[in-house]
Amino acid sequence: MALAGPEPGGALDRLIQLLARLPGFGPRSARRAALQLISRRESLMAPLAAALAEALDKVRPCSRCGNLDTMDPCAVCRDPARDAGVVCVVESVGDLWAIERSGAFRGLYHVLGGHLSAIDGIGPDELRIPALIARLGAPLREVVLALNATVDGQTTAHYIAAQLAGRGVAVTRLAHGVPVGGELDYLDDGTLAAALKARRPSAE
Amino acid sequence: MALAGPEPGGALDRLIQLLARLPGFGPRSARRAALQLISRRESLMAPLAAALAEALDKVRPCSRCGNLDTMDPCAVCRDPARDAGVVCVVESVGDLWAIERSGAFRGLYHVLGGHLSAIDGIGPDELRIPALIARLGAPLREVVLALNATVDGQTTAHYIAAQLAGRGVAVTRLAHGVPVGGELDYLDDGTLAAALKARRPSAE
Repeated sequence: MALAGPEPGGALDRLIQLLARLPGFGPRSARRAALQLISRRESLMAPLAAALAEALDKVRPCSRCGNLDTMDPCAVCRDPARDAGVVCVVESVGDLWAIERSGAFRGLYHVLGGHLSAIDGIGPDELRIPALIARLGAPLREVVLALNATVDGQTTAHYIAAQLAGRGVAVTRLAHGVPVGGELDYLDDGTLAAALKARRPSAE
Repeated sequence: MALAGPEPGGALDRLIQLLARLPGFGPRSARRAALQLISRRESLMAPLAAALAEALDKVRPCSRCGNLDTMDPCAVCRDPARDAGVVCVVESVGDLWAIERSGAFRGLYHVLGGHLSAIDGIGPDELRIPALIARLGAPLREVVLALNATVDGQTTAHYIAAQLAGRGVAVTRLAHGVPVGGELDYLDDGTLAAALKARRPSAE
């Protein structure tokens, strides 16, 4: 009577309970997904079971940058065409993927694994900040802080910038401004103020 | 650059592509789900991989009613406490689960696997209607048509009612009316008209 429709504790019920714990899924969508999987047994369910087992077996965080990959170091760290002189610091692997999708960055990454948070008890040591400092030296000339524009993200960026000051590396941040395609009327005041302050000659 | 962030064709990319094909998931939510799975390797990813493999291996349609279960006949058909004299006809296993959750039905089921549809080329033979007719006789005294209140669902219900006419079995349908907790102001005219037409003495 509770969550699912099939026999409680059965294979199908267990599958639905686990699917319901994925982000964006609830009991109802998990039931729909389970039925879809079973109705597409060969084209969807079997490949998904195999992909999940393979990812479970093989995907690990890169020991250098924290990206997820089946090899260590990861594909980004291994790529000789990338500029090892620039490291982009991000909170999560999802953020790393977002920057890769933009196609605008060809350096390396450093995934913190979150942001500083006094409430959650997350300090510098939980965040791979010591590992970032250990990467300083030799070819590294710039650290780009690409943290979320939230209070916690910016607090973390300030902290890291302070740690890196005077160590012979340039520390930069993402620009604030109007999102491409954004309508001014719908923008918050802070973004609009930042975009005005950072205005540039229109020829650029 | 296309769908996902990780190395194209890699284990993680494949997992995301497959997750994105689940109903209610798109590329973005599939990426989030994959990251969530990896960050909860032991508590979520491993159990989900195991549940998927087990369901793939064991869950099959019941040869009698079309319900999904790890055993054949299914748990509903096997239950001796259920009334074998009443069979509820539903379009899908999801509908069967919905009726089971209501707790208001203690008979058996017959899952059609869809509804009649000239456009999609779905006729009576695609729908387990012959299998329903084969269940007539002996203890069966009532067939409840619990099809969706859509045009296709009701066309299918009419067709089945015509097939069952004069075969010594009562054919009934779900009542139309005001949903429990429903506000009249938000109800469509058809439902309101049906609820008025089927009005009952208020003592009932």
